Formats: sequence, structure tokens, C-alpha cells
Amino acid sequence: MPNELKPFFEPSGIILVGASREEDKPGHVIFKILLENYEKGVLRVPIYPVNPNADSILGHKVYKSIKDVPSGADLAIIVVPAKIVPAVVRELGEQGVKAAVIISSGFSEIGRVDLEEELVREARSKGVRILGPNCVGIYSPWSGLDTIFLPYTKKLKDGREILSAPRPTRGHVALISQSGAVGTAALDYMHGEGIGLSYFFSIGNKADIDEVELIRELGEDDKTRVILLYVESIKRGREFVDTAEKVSLKKPIVAMKAGRTQAGKRAAASHTASLAGSDEIYEAAFRRSGVIRAQDIEELFDFAKVFASQPPPRGPRVGIVTDGGGAGVMATDMAEMLGLQVPELKLEARLKLEELKKNGIIPEFAQISNPVDLTGSASSEMFVEATRILLESSEVDMVAILALHQVPGIPDPVELAKELSRLTKEYSKPVVAVDTGWSEAAILERKEFDKNGIPAYPTPERAVKALWALYKYGEFLKSKNSLERYIESFLGGKYKN
Amino acid sequence: MPNELKPFFEPSGIILVGASREEDKPGHVIFKILLENYEKGVLRVPIYPVNPNADSILGHKVYKSIKDVPSGADLAIIVVPAKIVPAVVRELGEQGVKAAVIISSGFSEIGRVDLEEELVREARSKGVRILGPNCVGIYSPWSGLDTIFLPYTKKLKDGREILSAPRPTRGHVALISQSGAVGTAALDYMHGEGIGLSYFFSIGNKADIDEVELIRELGEDDKTRVILLYVESIKRGREFVDTAEKVSLKKPIVAMKAGRTQAGKRAAASHTASLAGSDEIYEAAFRRSGVIRAQDIEELFDFAKVFASQPPPRGPRVGIVTDGGGAGVMATDMAEMLGLQVPELKLEARLKLEELKKNGIIPEFAQISNPVDLTGSASSEMFVEATRILLESSEVDMVAILALHQVPGIPDPVELAKELSRLTKEYSKPVVAVDTGWSEAAILERKEFDKNGIPAYPTPERAVKALWALYKYGEFLKSKNSLERYIESFLGGKYKN
Repeated sequence: MPNELKPFFEPSGIILVGASREEDKPGHVIFKILLENYEKGVLRVPIYPVNPNADSILGHKVYKSIKDVPSGADLAIIVVPAKIVPAVVRELGEQGVKAAVIISSGFSEIGRVDLEEELVREARSKGVRILGPNCVGIYSPWSGLDTIFLPYTKKLKDGREILSAPRPTRGHVALISQSGAVGTAALDYMHGEGIGLSYFFSIGNKADIDEVELIRELGEDDKTRVILLYVESIKRGREFVDTAEKVSLKKPIVAMKAGRTQAGKRAAASHTASLAGSDEIYEAAFRRSGVIRAQDIEELFDFAKVFASQPPPRGPRVGIVTDGGGAGVMATDMAEMLGLQVPELKLEARLKLEELKKNGIIPEFAQISNPVDLTGSASSEMFVEATRILLESSEVDMVAILALHQVPGIPDPVELAKELSRLTKEYSKPVVAVDTGWSEAAILERKEFDKNGIPAYPTPERAVKALWALYKYGEFLKSKNSLERYIESFLGGKYKN
Repeated sequence: MPNELKPFFEPSGIILVGASREEDKPGHVIFKILLENYEKGVLRVPIYPVNPNADSILGHKVYKSIKDVPSGADLAIIVVPAKIVPAVVRELGEQGVKAAVIISSGFSEIGRVDLEEELVREARSKGVRILGPNCVGIYSPWSGLDTIFLPYTKKLKDGREILSAPRPTRGHVALISQSGAVGTAALDYMHGEGIGLSYFFSIGNKADIDEVELIRELGEDDKTRVILLYVESIKRGREFVDTAEKVSLKKPIVAMKAGRTQAGKRAAASHTASLAGSDEIYEAAFRRSGVIRAQDIEELFDFAKVFASQPPPRGPRVGIVTDGGGAGVMATDMAEMLGLQVPELKLEARLKLEELKKNGIIPEFAQISNPVDLTGSASSEMFVEATRILLESSEVDMVAILALHQVPGIPDPVELAKELSRLTKEYSKPVVAVDTGWSEAAILERKEFDKNGIPAYPTPERAVKALWALYKYGEFLKSKNSLERYIESFLGGKYKN
């Protein structure tokens, strides 16, 4: 990555301007977390805290000024008051620093457009690239860079210390967020859902670096398989479409665009001082560039999960296998409402299922037309057999397994998830799984599916929506004659069909 | 409750026809759970196991035939093979038993309409009311009656024993489900979400008792404040509308109706052998009778939570207070998309918020037009002050508190939830809360809100949808001139406005 953004991905050294002794201050929290990451060996570059009024912080030497810092560091994190930020950036530029994450707020978002313009002028003249201002910056479990000024835990009045701002583990989903609060809330959500992260960028006022440049960069990043985007406005519309369209050929982009309604736009305008255009324009831009739109945070991550582990289907036909008739009906309804199809099985799949009935492998009263309803008499073995038939069938393009763990015939739902995951890996069709509830059994079954690369959801509807997202992306790739190439490169070509 | 359904709610004694020694059999699981409930003192009536081939099960005396059972029991649970069920019902009727839960399957759902008709004829002629057949029956944490044939736990291969079919605790939400699998999955979900249950009825083939009769009954039940319904078809449309309309005046009914699309209907038909009419007809029936429709399981329980604890609003105007601008935008978008309003504050609320700014109680750069965005500098105190102003304002009818716990100014999110709950109890406006993420802090904050009667959700969108459900119900009550009466009786009249 021989370019201007490299320091944000792989810094050679980090200067923290505004390091602080006061425990609550961002300049302290960030320093402490960076030190911890350094000690853990995750962060492997030197950290230089700068503060004219401190000799040492957390037992480490503090530099009085930027000039005193040894040369070689290419990234700065700035947490000083807004009014001195332009001067700080100038000084950094003069010392050869090429990149700065500006956490400080107090710029255009509160009407100080002048100060932000001054900042940009200084940065441009000294060749410093800027993330922010008014952002929470960057977090990557790969590089160990973490400018999120929120401690991991909070200490409650009653003495309990509880996890409050967890960071997701290493993974392949990137997140770009215009809102710092949405970003950190999203990281908390991601951590809890067990979704791994490549890079998180909070772009704040995006005075310099914006979503377009980051999407281009993440498009080239080997660690990133899916790009998530939370935005309230996109300023460079044409560049966005051009860039997103190119990147979408290599990896899916999922966007949540807030500020859709009149009142929502008003709220967004007062929040980020940016004017959002009409929602139809965004919708059209996303469609043209292959960007999949999520309606809310839940969908954003539901889609992230499916894109990280499953290839797109080759068509709109969903095969459903279930042990709960009602769950099958819900999944069918959602599929059809989204424009997918749940075709009646008529050909070889049907014959094979009838064969299973005849041989007493599935119940005589099982429904085999699709959904394949194994009923409450379902067993783990039946699930495996029926799923295999759907995976092999030319009549469906993707499969939803609704394995409600409650039925007596599934003695070990974790084992079932393992077996089904093993089976589905042999085929190139996308698969999602569902188990409903919050009992240990439900949670463990879903986790086991997730762990083995089959995204699992707590309701049939959410699973089917994820399949729809895959389908939409597949249709985009198809329109560019790139579907087979994508599937091949995604799966590595070791599958039956 | 001096009527025919009383034995299903408060049996005087229970005859279990088909009690079994084999641990996996429904006739064993049900007996064991009933015994446990009896020993715990939750179930307070005698249980009589019947099995011609067993002397004792679990150390208890078994009756050879129904005739041998001492008189006085008014409820039977039947788990014997379908073909002998009609004869069993006749015999029960002759012994004076008035009600039977028929778990056995093998009737109309597999094409044996003849057997189901024979069953109904026998029951009618002997005056026995029937729940089912082909159902999981009844569970109530109040009466201790539990015919769900699923053990609480499963034993995994690796030796772990995990919770698999948890039963919700005592509460005020009733659930009627046409699908047994959806019902038991829903109970698992409810237990995990901490939503208390009054009664669960699985109606299966509804050969005799259907949703209409149960809604009427639950309308009169003091323990039930909200009625949830999962159905794939409603046979008695006119009676449904008449009954639901009356009951809706007293308590909300939330329905999830599956089998909406062509393929969904086909799936439902093969599942329950019942023909679903056009979705428009159901939509119209629900609208007329004040029934709130949920789109999926998640919504069903999101709505249940809000109805159990909050009164309907008097109008469509939502006040939003947040520490995350983006979350405020999302909530605003969803509100407007659903037809609610997020009005700009102009009158006394705005003046009061400006006063807070002037006095340095909220940040100078906070947004006070609605959403009220306290920004990342928000503190617990600010939340309390701003929320009070919204609750007192004549410009909004309901309030959404989006208190993302991550901000540094909320040292103790649990304490904040407590304070806000205390505050909101003084007012008659409905309130919902949001915190996003799955960290301990997020989970504990939401649980604390829930515990104190403010329903909490993990995303802004889900919270706003819940407010919408309240609003729709309020509009129905208004159209019947019953809104103020309902609010008064719901809250008991001890509020400011």
C-alpha cells in the first residue's frame, strides 16, 4: 500500500498530541490503551506522548513539544482544543509527519467552518492527510492502532467493573462510520455478535479523507472482505458511484444511509452540518454501484455476517428445510415479499425426498414440496439428509436451514450445527441457519453455526433477508459478468456444484 | 370464570392419559414436569397418571384405566395414539371430565379429517371441550399446568447439560399459537427477553377451541394485560372481528399472521391443512378490530413489552433525547416512515432547553430542536433534565430515550436507567429506551430499564416501531372514545400529565 493513507493502516510510529495525566481525558485513555496494545505485542511501533506540562504519564517519558519527538513517526493523534489544532498540524507537517487523526471537536459541526477551513489549508500546504476532525478515529485489531477514547470498562457505583466499550476481535469486516457514537455502538454490537473486524474508521466531519477514499483503499486491503458504511450524507456523489462500482466487483459494500425522511434530514443536518440530498438519489447511486442497502444496524451486521462467509447465489430460488412448519411459513413469506422465490420441488429433489419417506428415513407425514417440513418428529439425521438433497438440487439456488433445537429428535443441537456445516462446505450454494430463542441451546447452536462459517440468525425473517442481500449482490455481479469469477475466488473452487 | 374453559385455566385435578415409563416419551416428560410443579407448590391439584401396562411411574401409583381414577378431576391430558383418542374422550366424558388437552397428532393435519370429525362428535356428545389435537397444549406459570412435552434441558454428547426449553416466569402477557413449534420457540425467546407470561395456549388443529374463544376468555382474565396471537388461518372471521373488537377496548391484542404470500399460503396449507384467505382480508379484519399486526417474532415481543408497561400516546408526536446524533437520525427516520412525527420544538420546551444551555447544564453545542442531541459530552444529569422537559412539553406525545452507555459522561448506565425510570413514572406519556450493543454495560442498562417498566431495545428502529404500535392502539381506542378511560385504568391516575 505505497500511498498517502498507509500511515492510517500501518503507522511507523505514533505521536499523541495532548497526552494527559487525567484519567478521564481522551488523551489519557488513548495513551493507556496504545501502551497496553504495545505491551501485548499487537501494536509494534513506538508511541510518543506530547504535553508541554507533563514530564511523565503512566511511567513513560513525555515530550514537551512535537519538535522534541524523534523522527520517523508518520502518524499523529490529536486531542488538543480545536483552536490550536491548525497550528499543531502545521508543526507536525514541518516535522515530516504525513497523517493525523483529529479527535478534537469544535469545528464545522458547531458552525466553526472557518476553523475547519484553516485546518485544511494548513494540512494541504504541509502535505498532511487528515482523518476527522470531530471523530473517534481508528481501531484495528490487526495493527493495534486504537484511538477510541473509551475505556474498555466502567466502574459502577456498587463497585462492579463491567465491560462497556469492547473491541471486536480480528476478522474481515471493515466499518466506516460518519457518526462516532454509531460507530462505537456498532463495535459493541459486532463484538457481541462475534463478528471479526479488519478496520474501523470514524470519519467525523471528513474535512479531508472521506468514505470514497477509504472505500477505494479498503477495496485493495487483503484483510477486508466486506465493507460496511454508516453515512448521513455523501458529498462526492459521482466519485462515490465510480469507486463503489469498481470495489463492488471485488467485495460487497453494505451501506446504511440515515437521514432519509424530511425530519431525519433535518436531524442529520444539525448533527453533522452536512446536507443530505433526496433519498431517491442515494437509492439510485447505491443500486448503480452494487452497494447493498441496510435498513438499520441489525441488518447492517446481519448482512456483514452472510457476506463474510457465503458466496452469492446464482438465482432467486430458496430451498427451506425446517422442523417447525410455522417457521417455514414465515421464511417463505419473507422470501416472496422480498422478490425471492420458494418454488415447489418437482424434479429429482422431490423424488429423492419421496425415497427418504419410503425408506422411513423421514416421517411419512413430512412435507416435501418446499419448505421441506420434517415436523416435530425431525431428527439430526433427517436434517442432514434433506439438506443434502436441497444442496444438490438444480431447483434451488440457496438454502435456509431452520433447525429449531427444541424438538426431541435433536439431542445435541451443537453437534447438528457441526454436521450441517461440514456438509454445506462441499457445495457452492449459500446457506443460512436459524434457531429461535435465547436459551443456552439456542445460543450455542447459533454460535456453532457461526463458528463454522454458516451465518445463524434468531428469526427466519432475518435469515431470509440476509439471503436476499446475497442475491442482490449476485445480481449486480451477474450484470457485470463477474458472478462466476467472484464465486470461484470466494470459495477457491473446491466444491461439488 | 364460571364457564366451560375454566378447567384449562384452573383445573381441579389432572388425568394424564398415556403416562409413560419411557423417559423420552411425551407421556413421561409431562408427568415428570407436573410432579415437579406439584412438589414446588406451583401446581396445587392432584395428578392421576393412566396406563394399563404400568403399576407405577417415578414412584407414583398409576391407574389402569380412566374408570379407576377418583372422581373430581375436570381436566385430561391425552398423549395416546390418534386412533384411540375418540374412545378415550368418550370414556372421559362418561366419567364427568369436562375438558381435554389432546397432544396426539395424526388427525386432519395428515389428511385424517374423518378421525378428527369422529373425535369432535364424541366430545360434543359427552360435553367435553377440547384443545388441539396436534398441539403442545398449555403452560401457565401461575397455575403450574404444563403440558409441553419438552424437558427443560438437553444433555450434549460432551456431557454438558444445557437449558433447552425454558419456561417464562409469571407475568401478564398471554400467547396463543396455532403452531406448536413457533409457540415453544416463542417461549424460549420470551424467557430470554425476561417477558413474563400469564398463559400459553397451543391450539393446533383447533378442532373445538380456537383463537376466538381464547381471546374472549383472556379478555376477562385478570392476569392477562396483553394478548399475543400467532396464526396461519382464522376460520371464524366474523366472530374473530366481533370478539377482538370488544376485547381490544380492554387490552391490546398483537397478532402475527403468517401465510401472507402465495407461496407462504401454500406452505401454511400443507402445515395446518387450513386455507388462508387473502392477506388484505386479514389486514382489514385486524384494523377494524384494533388488533396490532406484528411482522415477525421479534416485533411480536417488542410490542408485547411496550404494551405490558406503557400506556398509548394521545397523538403521533415523538420527542427524542440522545447522546448519539446518528441514533437520533435513525429514530427520526423510522418514526417518519411509520407515519409518526418528530416535530421541531418551538414553544416552552425549547425555551427551557435554551435555559439549560445558558446555565451550562447542557453543552452549548447541544442540539435542542428534536431530536435533543446532548452529544458525546452528555452526562446522566443532562439526560434527566432533558427528558423531564420532553415529558412536560405539550409539543410531544411520547418520548424515546436513546442513552448509548459508551459516552464518558455516563459513569453508571444502570444508575441512569434507574433515575430515568423514576422520573418517567410521574408522567402519563409512554417512554421507550435504547442502548445498542451486547456488552455487559448495554445488557445491564437495558435490563434495568425493563425491570423498572420502561421497555428497552437494542436499536433505535425497534424502539420507535414499539412506539408506533402504541400509537396505532391509541388511535383505535380514540375512535371508540375509550383512550382516556384506558390510560386512566392502565396508570391508576397518579401522574402529572
